[in-house]
Amino acid sequence: MAIAELIDKKRRGGRLTRPELEELIHGHLRGDIPDYQIAAWLMAVCWRGMEPDELADLTMIMSESGRQLDLSPVGRTVVDKHSTGGVGDKTSLVAVPLVAACGVPVGKMSGRGLGFSGGTLDKLEALDGFRVDLSADQFLEQLRGVGAVIAGQSPDLAPADGKLYALRDVTATVASIPLIASSVMSKKLAGGAPVIVLDVKCGRGAFMPTEADACDLAETMIQIGRSANRSVTAFVTDMDQPLGTMVGNALEVQEATRALSGADADDRLADLAIEIAAEMLVLAAATPDRSSARERVLAALRDGSAFRKLVELVVAQGGDPTPLDRPDLLDTASIKQPVTAGRSGYVAALDALCVARAANRLGAGRERKGDPIDHAVGVQILTPVGSAVTAGETVAIIHANNSERLAASQPLVEAAFTVADEPPQPRPVIHHRMSTQET
Amino acid sequence: MAIAELIDKKRRGGRLTRPELEELIHGHLRGDIPDYQIAAWLMAVCWRGMEPDELADLTMIMSESGRQLDLSPVGRTVVDKHSTGGVGDKTSLVAVPLVAACGVPVGKMSGRGLGFSGGTLDKLEALDGFRVDLSADQFLEQLRGVGAVIAGQSPDLAPADGKLYALRDVTATVASIPLIASSVMSKKLAGGAPVIVLDVKCGRGAFMPTEADACDLAETMIQIGRSANRSVTAFVTDMDQPLGTMVGNALEVQEATRALSGADADDRLADLAIEIAAEMLVLAAATPDRSSARERVLAALRDGSAFRKLVELVVAQGGDPTPLDRPDLLDTASIKQPVTAGRSGYVAALDALCVARAANRLGAGRERKGDPIDHAVGVQILTPVGSAVTAGETVAIIHANNSERLAASQPLVEAAFTVADEPPQPRPVIHHRMSTQET
Repeated sequence: MAIAELIDKKRRGGRLTRPELEELIHGHLRGDIPDYQIAAWLMAVCWRGMEPDELADLTMIMSESGRQLDLSPVGRTVVDKHSTGGVGDKTSLVAVPLVAACGVPVGKMSGRGLGFSGGTLDKLEALDGFRVDLSADQFLEQLRGVGAVIAGQSPDLAPADGKLYALRDVTATVASIPLIASSVMSKKLAGGAPVIVLDVKCGRGAFMPTEADACDLAETMIQIGRSANRSVTAFVTDMDQPLGTMVGNALEVQEATRALSGADADDRLADLAIEIAAEMLVLAAATPDRSSARERVLAALRDGSAFRKLVELVVAQGGDPTPLDRPDLLDTASIKQPVTAGRSGYVAALDALCVARAANRLGAGRERKGDPIDHAVGVQILTPVGSAVTAGETVAIIHANNSERLAASQPLVEAAFTVADEPPQPRPVIHHRMSTQET
Repeated sequence: MAIAELIDKKRRGGRLTRPELEELIHGHLRGDIPDYQIAAWLMAVCWRGMEPDELADLTMIMSESGRQLDLSPVGRTVVDKHSTGGVGDKTSLVAVPLVAACGVPVGKMSGRGLGFSGGTLDKLEALDGFRVDLSADQFLEQLRGVGAVIAGQSPDLAPADGKLYALRDVTATVASIPLIASSVMSKKLAGGAPVIVLDVKCGRGAFMPTEADACDLAETMIQIGRSANRSVTAFVTDMDQPLGTMVGNALEVQEATRALSGADADDRLADLAIEIAAEMLVLAAATPDRSSARERVLAALRDGSAFRKLVELVVAQGGDPTPLDRPDLLDTASIKQPVTAGRSGYVAALDALCVARAANRLGAGRERKGDPIDHAVGVQILTPVGSAVTAGETVAIIHANNSERLAASQPLVEAAFTVADEPPQPRPVIHHRMSTQET
């Protein structure tokens, strides 16, 4: 009876108090409140939204629902980084070692990739032996020693979120800005880092298709961070086109490695990784200002220390680092199928969603939790947006291990390219930056 | 996966097709679709509403989810009547025997009263031995023989509604016009009567507090009736004040009996019962027009045939009819506490909700399914709205069996009365009448 009244309050657009939210979330986690009541409340939240204080309360309750990491043994300010997920998004593989090479420890826990392409963990698992399941002690130990760790999300952090997310997934209540924000931030808060940099993707290949929604989500997470006394910056970044030129797990490790070596990196990937890394240094107060933060990041790229930090991270987590120097040793696909331009002109658009679907058909991502993925397959873009192309020129190479999957993906890759007479207006990769550090 | 997509479609304001609704409703009834998915869909319906065709589909699917009564063995047009429930609403006890006395068979299945006061079944059970649990065969047999039957809702009629309603009750999804309309109409359609007269109450003591919502619900049920090829009329009627002067089970049987005897009946109760009964005759094509229908109804009141029909009905269902002639034989309460006017003037308002809560505190209604109720207790109004009163005059009598319950109800009865200097504008009991028979 009381629970139905709480649902009804939200249904009418009211605000639940902290004790009311505790009753809901703790009761659900204990198994005292059935899923059907929580499902009705979740849909009512999708309908009515949440007030800022209400959302901050919900997020704190979720973040405190299990273990909370104490990072004080690390002895320095630890930073964390999160992306809402995009196509070809290997930014973490570049930014994490970059920041660590600048002397700021980065402890990142990732979820598994669900949807079109693999997540950061899947990409790293393209390296033989790489372990993502670290205990909290191992996580802390590596943070202290190497200063960089990328591990799987520990299930005892914010378990209320895990249970809620599983229910949202089957009740069409995933797409709600307050619910997304509280899910992301509850895990980040429980992870213990005082500094958090968020990359909120928007566009065709992102969960938030519009810039307005992405800004709303970013602002909502900033507010939660402020309530929880964390330093949080969120970037709203472009995901209309894939980030970089590689989409697929081993292919993306190659591209990230190349970017860390300073060699012929895609401009937009490098720009974003450098900007995010610099922001992490600024928030951690590791440099006096933003321009010196950028200089330090660029120096860590040039002097090879960032690349060496990635090697260190891989070795610390049991992975074989050899392919980082010798990409030919990574798993490669048996079929390499060129895709050619149908006409001459300029690449005016490259649809991230089409490329993502193509990669998914090839087997690079998973449709269900636990599905196996093929690390070798993917799509390699030769002519990014803005390139001049001539009819018949190879614009992309599909890396496939199966001719049926190739046949299913090829039309999608072809359709991803729009060739026009005029070159497109250049668009910056970063649309907005917002932070708890600004009022 | 498919079910989450159906929920998402409704969440986005889309219309589910008949096969999609069948999948949801049949899957839920079979136990294949978990309550949490149905709960999310229900809340999405509260949010987005349903399109008329979609709602007609849902109602038909629910009505066809179990047994459907075939009334053709009765050999005549059977009419049914339903009220959304109000305070002191004993209209069925008057209208059912009236219509049957005019030669038109009335088969009514009622739910148990939930909330402030008892339902029609509870009122009839104030008569010793009265049985409400009839088999379908007994129901048909009595319809054929007596021409009037008031029985409990058979659980094998529209079982999908029963399961859905239980879930709505605990997920704050009861208050939704399409869901209320489909719940009522699915049972009426399964009950098999080609003619249905609905009494949609609005006001302080009704489930629909505003006239606009009540009209919306009435119109929605009319549309469903039209889609199902039934003749349906809905009256939107006043429930700001109790209907009649008695609230409480045995008290209401007394008042209904008095109205059927033509003796000093409350005008508003008589007006409504006569209008509803006449409408039932009109829709059943038992009379050439509305004015002759009214004449027949009035004749059945005057010549005692309607009263005798109630006696017949009670006897057929095993009840003791003696108290219908001798109300002093009904259970009476041990305490009869007068409530007096605080000032002189005119009764300007009589709050149905206050009276209902008072009756509930006395034990006349139930808070939970299965709670016992006290048939003897209730509130007797001596000075209805419009009466001139003098300070200290008795305006109501509380019938109680327990001094604590009396103490809890007395302030509510006192608060129900508003006495003003001027008499109020008279308000008709019937606000609107709408019908499938009009375009």
